Amino acid sequence: MPASPPPPAPATRRETDSMGAIDVPADRYWGAQTQRSLEHFSIGIERMPEALIRSFGTLKEAAAFANRSLGQLDETRADLIVTAAREVAEGRLSEHFPLRVWQTGSGTQTNMNVNEVIANRAIELSGGVLGSKTPIHPNDHVNMAQSSNDTFPTAMHMAAVTALSCTLLPQVRGLRASLAQKAKLFAPIVKIGRTHLQDAVPLTLGQEFSGYVAQLDQAIDRLEATLPGLRELALGGTAVGTGLNTHPAFAVRAIARISEITGHPFRQADNLFAALAAHDAMVAASAGLRGLAVALTKIANDIRWLGSGPRCGLGELILPENEPGSSIMPGKVNPTQCESLLMICLQVMAADGAVAMAGSQGNFELNVHKPLIAYNVLQAITLLADGCKAFTHFLVEGLSADETRIAEMVDRSLMLVTALTPSIGYDRAAAIAKAAHANGTTLREETLASGLMDDAAFTAAVQPARMAHPHGTADDIDKDGGGPRQG
Amino acid sequence: MPASPPPPAPATRRETDSMGAIDVPADRYWGAQTQRSLEHFSIGIERMPEALIRSFGTLKEAAAFANRSLGQLDETRADLIVTAAREVAEGRLSEHFPLRVWQTGSGTQTNMNVNEVIANRAIELSGGVLGSKTPIHPNDHVNMAQSSNDTFPTAMHMAAVTALSCTLLPQVRGLRASLAQKAKLFAPIVKIGRTHLQDAVPLTLGQEFSGYVAQLDQAIDRLEATLPGLRELALGGTAVGTGLNTHPAFAVRAIARISEITGHPFRQADNLFAALAAHDAMVAASAGLRGLAVALTKIANDIRWLGSGPRCGLGELILPENEPGSSIMPGKVNPTQCESLLMICLQVMAADGAVAMAGSQGNFELNVHKPLIAYNVLQAITLLADGCKAFTHFLVEGLSADETRIAEMVDRSLMLVTALTPSIGYDRAAAIAKAAHANGTTLREETLASGLMDDAAFTAAVQPARMAHPHGTADDIDKDGGGPRQG
Amino acid sequence: MPASPPPPAPATRRETDSMGAIDVPADRYWGAQTQRSLEHFSIGIERMPEALIRSFGTLKEAAAFANRSLGQLDETRADLIVTAAREVAEGRLSEHFPLRVWQTGSGTQTNMNVNEVIANRAIELSGGVLGSKTPIHPNDHVNMAQSSNDTFPTAMHMAAVTALSCTLLPQVRGLRASLAQKAKLFAPIVKIGRTHLQDAVPLTLGQEFSGYVAQLDQAIDRLEATLPGLRELALGGTAVGTGLNTHPAFAVRAIARISEITGHPFRQADNLFAALAAHDAMVAASAGLRGLAVALTKIANDIRWLGSGPRCGLGELILPENEPGSSIMPGKVNPTQCESLLMICLQVMAADGAVAMAGSQGNFELNVHKPLIAYNVLQAITLLADGCKAFTHFLVEGLSADETRIAEMVDRSLMLVTALTPSIGYDRAAAIAKAAHANGTTLREETLASGLMDDAAFTAAVQPARMAHPHGTADDIDKDGGGPRQG
Amino acid sequence: MPASPPPPAPATRRETDSMGAIDVPADRYWGAQTQRSLEHFSIGIERMPEALIRSFGTLKEAAAFANRSLGQLDETRADLIVTAAREVAEGRLSEHFPLRVWQTGSGTQTNMNVNEVIANRAIELSGGVLGSKTPIHPNDHVNMAQSSNDTFPTAMHMAAVTALSCTLLPQVRGLRASLAQKAKLFAPIVKIGRTHLQDAVPLTLGQEFSGYVAQLDQAIDRLEATLPGLRELALGGTAVGTGLNTHPAFAVRAIARISEITGHPFRQADNLFAALAAHDAMVAASAGLRGLAVALTKIANDIRWLGSGPRCGLGELILPENEPGSSIMPGKVNPTQCESLLMICLQVMAADGAVAMAGSQGNFELNVHKPLIAYNVLQAITLLADGCKAFTHFLVEGLSADETRIAEMVDRSLMLVTALTPSIGYDRAAAIAKAAHANGTTLREETLASGLMDDAAFTAAVQPARMAHPHGTADDIDKDGGGPRQG
Repeated sequence: MPASPPPPAPATRRETDSMGAIDVPADRYWGAQTQRSLEHFSIGIERMPEALIRSFGTLKEAAAFANRSLGQLDETRADLIVTAAREVAEGRLSEHFPLRVWQTGSGTQTNMNVNEVIANRAIELSGGVLGSKTPIHPNDHVNMAQSSNDTFPTAMHMAAVTALSCTLLPQVRGLRASLAQKAKLFAPIVKIGRTHLQDAVPLTLGQEFSGYVAQLDQAIDRLEATLPGLRELALGGTAVGTGLNTHPAFAVRAIARISEITGHPFRQADNLFAALAAHDAMVAASAGLRGLAVALTKIANDIRWLGSGPRCGLGELILPENEPGSSIMPGKVNPTQCESLLMICLQVMAADGAVAMAGSQGNFELNVHKPLIAYNVLQAITLLADGCKAFTHFLVEGLSADETRIAEMVDRSLMLVTALTPSIGYDRAAAIAKAAHANGTTLREETLASGLMDDAAFTAAVQPARMAHPHGTADDIDKDGGGPRQG
Repeated sequence: MPASPPPPAPATRRETDSMGAIDVPADRYWGAQTQRSLEHFSIGIERMPEALIRSFGTLKEAAAFANRSLGQLDETRADLIVTAAREVAEGRLSEHFPLRVWQTGSGTQTNMNVNEVIANRAIELSGGVLGSKTPIHPNDHVNMAQSSNDTFPTAMHMAAVTALSCTLLPQVRGLRASLAQKAKLFAPIVKIGRTHLQDAVPLTLGQEFSGYVAQLDQAIDRLEATLPGLRELALGGTAVGTGLNTHPAFAVRAIARISEITGHPFRQADNLFAALAAHDAMVAASAGLRGLAVALTKIANDIRWLGSGPRCGLGELILPENEPGSSIMPGKVNPTQCESLLMICLQVMAADGAVAMAGSQGNFELNVHKPLIAYNVLQAITLLADGCKAFTHFLVEGLSADETRIAEMVDRSLMLVTALTPSIGYDRAAAIAKAAHANGTTLREETLASGLMDDAAFTAAVQPARMAHPHGTADDIDKDGGGPRQG
Repeated sequence: MPASPPPPAPATRRETDSMGAIDVPADRYWGAQTQRSLEHFSIGIERMPEALIRSFGTLKEAAAFANRSLGQLDETRADLIVTAAREVAEGRLSEHFPLRVWQTGSGTQTNMNVNEVIANRAIELSGGVLGSKTPIHPNDHVNMAQSSNDTFPTAMHMAAVTALSCTLLPQVRGLRASLAQKAKLFAPIVKIGRTHLQDAVPLTLGQEFSGYVAQLDQAIDRLEATLPGLRELALGGTAVGTGLNTHPAFAVRAIARISEITGHPFRQADNLFAALAAHDAMVAASAGLRGLAVALTKIANDIRWLGSGPRCGLGELILPENEPGSSIMPGKVNPTQCESLLMICLQVMAADGAVAMAGSQGNFELNVHKPLIAYNVLQAITLLADGCKAFTHFLVEGLSADETRIAEMVDRSLMLVTALTPSIGYDRAAAIAKAAHANGTTLREETLASGLMDDAAFTAAVQPARMAHPHGTADDIDKDGGGPRQG
Repeated sequence: MPASPPPPAPATRRETDSMGAIDVPADRYWGAQTQRSLEHFSIGIERMPEALIRSFGTLKEAAAFANRSLGQLDETRADLIVTAAREVAEGRLSEHFPLRVWQTGSGTQTNMNVNEVIANRAIELSGGVLGSKTPIHPNDHVNMAQSSNDTFPTAMHMAAVTALSCTLLPQVRGLRASLAQKAKLFAPIVKIGRTHLQDAVPLTLGQEFSGYVAQLDQAIDRLEATLPGLRELALGGTAVGTGLNTHPAFAVRAIARISEITGHPFRQADNLFAALAAHDAMVAASAGLRGLAVALTKIANDIRWLGSGPRCGLGELILPENEPGSSIMPGKVNPTQCESLLMICLQVMAADGAVAMAGSQGNFELNVHKPLIAYNVLQAITLLADGCKAFTHFLVEGLSADETRIAEMVDRSLMLVTALTPSIGYDRAAAIAKAAHANGTTLREETLASGLMDDAAFTAAVQPARMAHPHGTADDIDKDGGGPRQG
């Protein structure tokens, strides 16, 4: 397996655009404008997200469909475009989309990359000559009735809707279900509460986990609430939002076809000027993703802290062992899934800042930060989806409680003194707690030493489980382990 | 008016808490815990937001009402607390709330400040001795059935709901109405579009403004969508979410009373563990505020650029002159309202980052970044409300279009060449445009020079208004100036 | 102490500017332009920072001095201006500076506020009539050879240098000294290390604290490295950076005088175009403040976690008790100083984002986000200074180690098994550790049970202190408690 | 070119670690721990940055060198490791490093990936059996005297130093040189200044560009100032900073060797506890990158606005035409390089926020956000380097001034009226300017119409070039086009 020798310079063919001819790799479908972008924007390694390219494929298929149905495009050409576009949508031509995120802010070059690849692939299907633009022209036929200014935001919304609905939300729901199962399983386990990181009055481990479930429920709701805005498409606005050079029925037909293909109820945006010049729906979606990251940060942090130890930490949870711990230190299980998820959440929160700032920077009829917005939102969706999946399977599912340790801490906590107050009054209870704190003893020991109560009375009075359910029993807890509701 | 001499050291009285006695200013109602916070947290100049303090007043009134109705508090004491709490709610005691934002992360010291001020004011009303805790004790009576851990987030949500609904949204709606009026007024004005800052095909100034209206409509919708989450209150959770030491009916009654007093339909949060340990609803509200800031940034930027000049800028809009321009340069109107609003928007976007990060940092049963969250959200609401108000009255209302200048630019733009394509074909149209660009001439001049069309034919072909409304006439524009919808 | 009745409408006087006459409060020195700003920018409660106003006072004094020395201003007028400006610099006229941060982005209105107040106070000193502009005119005399565009950034830099050097750095150095003292005191205390929150090999508590000291040392160095950039002043650039309407020697003389008065070696910026249109030195200073916040976050978090408990946390540190803990729970000391400092750090980090973004938004010859930049940087300095001071005095100074608890954890940790490897080999050592983990026993117990070593041999082999100093003894530690250096 | 059929399932071999055996692809050098990470952290598409992997190669070579020189490793093994490690350093084995950024927060899995690849490649070189760990064991030999906790931050610093010094700074200097050349070329071109986007007094285009040069000079200085901090390495700290299990001379020798190989003067960090638990030097480097992004944002924005048009914008600059403009609109050159750079800058600013927040989140002896920090800093460096390069070659080098247009605007600007004040007084000058503004005439026209001056007198008085150089002539401008210095 030595490193392979450099490959021979690849064969090329000529492609042309309005600036003249340029060589492109012979085994790639892209054309002149893509090639120019490759040379002028050889920046970083971040390619346009695959989800975006695939949505562009569907969009081009739907446009050809609409143009044919309106008599703008003949059947042969339309069929060729539909076939080639579907290959793009299915991700089968991904090596033909080399362009970087860091290109023109309208994403024009990626729109042209899609047009060129579909045109050449369609030409190939028809037996034509690559680069000949015959019988399919990238602009005249593939881009018919469209502009980068309306197609790019359309594809961006399509990709976001698909990725959110089909990639992310199922994983969040899976994590939610897994946490809810733990909340139910942990419902009987009474543990010490902690506020300000300091010992507080007890609750159950199930109640603690019910808080995580509730946070995810809300995060899911808020993410779903961003979908309607994303389902509004800019298509039909063309260059500046007026729809110049489109058939009046084009956008509606194309969007109906997109909805049919994808199964998502897209519709045209009410105001196309805003749809080109602002991306507020993407900013809102990004905020929804950030909201999920905020909740996951709390959850991942709690779990890694509750699992800290094994001897010198809190030690209430036992985390699954996925990788070798240190070769020296048996029992050391690093909370690596928590750490990974915490980094993902930070990344999402930072990316969200970029999206919001970019969203604010439109001028007049166009926002030219579109690729950055698409990149960050789609990256965030992917990271959160993959992160939730790994966290569910490699952490939450294998999580168990160290009930002995938990009980031990409840037992030695001084907070239970609260339960003595009704019997012996606040002042004496406080004196007992202070003595226990000073002497390093337990409340029981100090209470017995005080002669104020005997062992049976102490046992009768100090019932942590009752303190965790002051208004009822654990049976009141709903099936997800949620907390009791008053009233 | 020379600076006044330093005042004599004020008289003090003794107040006590569990740590002992401490002197407080004789003319202030606060007690020992407030005084200790003043000394230990003498940090910065930012006091707890007044809106929060006033909401605390209402909360304490409602708590006393609920405790009385449940037989926990006698009528005399309850009445005294209600009276004093109402003064807090009405903002009549604001000089008694000196504590800083940068205190304990649970806001305990501010909760105690409220308890102490209400107790002493109630004692005063009853003819008692300040600091005597008789007949009203700050903890036992004013804080009855409450904890800082549930009251602070409750007051925070109450203040956010009130400020959003009553302070901010009316101003945003006012700005929206003012922009819609301009969109209607500007509907007939055909102007050159700009994409990538470069000349593009025409649209109307009304269409451009309709985009702003649409952005604000969406921002309003998104802000309103955050209200239900904010209307869920943590009250009844007390220390860790279990509701220890509350009467089972306390929270529901108190919240009903809060709803009655404020007119907002509050309810108890479904999961009180999440309500204490996370503030996801505040994070979402903050994202809504940020969404508004994003839209306003686009609007303020467009207006200041369109108003740039008077001779060497774009010069399409004429901004009202509010302050003296330079004493040297008549006609120089600085877009100061735009600048102020842009700074506000940046501040809101940055503050939102603090809120989200703080929201993610809860541990176990408590998030201890509550004051920071309250401070930033309430500051953002105030700044956006005041900023929108000033922007409406001192900028948008006085805005007018420089129709001569706008027409002149449409006239000399080369983009109108698009309209010649159907008559003379793309190649000849392109040649004309290129010639005009190279020679610094107009399209008309070059067209006539080419001999391809005569003046009448050119006039007939090049109709910018038609290009702005390719699928119909300006009459199709809705009454707010919104863009035409296809289909 | 009932709330006082509303005061009667105050008397007013007339002031004029180029837009005409306007009423101002009779007991205030400000003039027409300030009054207009108050009305047009009644936004929020944030006034221009006092440190900025005071620096403006010094700047105006120095300008009058320079103008007199260059024969541009007669001695009488110059003396009057100097006297009045000094009152501004000394903070004696602060009630005369009501303007908000959210005004014109050049800060022109605050520059005029300063000019107007100095002019009227000087007129008063000369026995003249307020508002008469005789003998001192706010523009012609106080603002002579200046523009808002160069004075505002000059005052901003002056205020930042002063606040950083005189307010913040002494407090950071104080905290550093206090932590270094603890590092020395804690040098002999061997404790368990924690990586990934999990038990690891031992180090000393002094070594742990030496890391905090090192972080602060670096933060101080990085903050000091921002001072030279801040000491470069825009003065002399006037409106666009060319210095139009200034005497060629004005700026140098005025800056020399500023250096003399303040004791800081200011100099004119090398490039005045950049000095007006960009604020990169402020952005860098803000990054320095953020760097300090990053370090403080680590420190405050470590201390609150090490102090968690008292029974169910890590419990290695004992934090001073400043406020009453819960009335129920003796021994509960909330780490309130840590929480306050953590909120401050988050606020500083968010504000820094606003500063950077604002710094990037200059256009052509001017950046019009100056007030926002000044506000956030000066707020951050104040919060960090006050926060460090409180943290030092109310937390670090009173911090002690719970040596019993620390020793107990070292004793039961399984990580010490590493020390057995040389004697009994890795496999047997691992077996012992695994058995101890499974059985909940100590390493010593399992080792003795294994029969591989006797008690004396175990004691000889397992020496945590040696593990903490593998290359030498604790005496090698430098006097600040820093870690040993290899080589 | 149809999409190729899926490849057959690849052959595998067995690799083992302390958790047992696992299959890995037969044609890859990695071992069991890498394979487990691939399965547990199949998250996103972001691999560990290649620059980091290559620095790890150098680090492992240097470690083997040091261990050999200290007699810890025999010559044969050391030579094998050195040879394999060098292949890693040269980037020849990059397909063997598949791990994601989103793994354990210490980067342990990547450290093991490097150890495993080097071990297996060395085994192959020695004729051994892959996976046999004979004669080279990934832990015992390749990782000898190291821990992930000290090697990962060491490699991170090495990669940052190399990328900053060798990748980014040369490109920034190139851009600076190109802008300086334009500043010199544009030195004679007098143009209208703009403040608040509004017409102001004149300056030269060279002066304007000198501001950009000055900003880059400062940005370069600030970036270079972060190098010393980055050159301090954590190596020798091993697990918690104490250096357990290292030869006392190991770190110094290894670091000396690293310096020798790379040519950068690295040294061991003064405090190894801080070096593992905090990454303040990376946070500072990130702030330096952000500072550059702030400056570039100003520059790219100015240039795209000055190039706006061609007919309806500012039109002072003519941007090179790199890609086809619209097929309809000749003369439309979109400022795509500016847009790309602006997106890059926003991305860098957002990533910087992630780095700072991550930097603050260390706990006790380790910061577990290392991969996120490395990823964002190295991405920022790459994007800025590539962005500056493209911006230099495809934008700045081809930039020219539209001198006719610039002169025309100077001519019609009303700001030049300032120059009449000395001759005819402020009031008459103002009246002339106001009349010109109202009538849409030029100052010259109104002046002649007023009868106050004749044409010759006007020409003599109004000399924009003199206004741009009030204290001297254009010859005073330094050779980079910097502004004149007073004094």
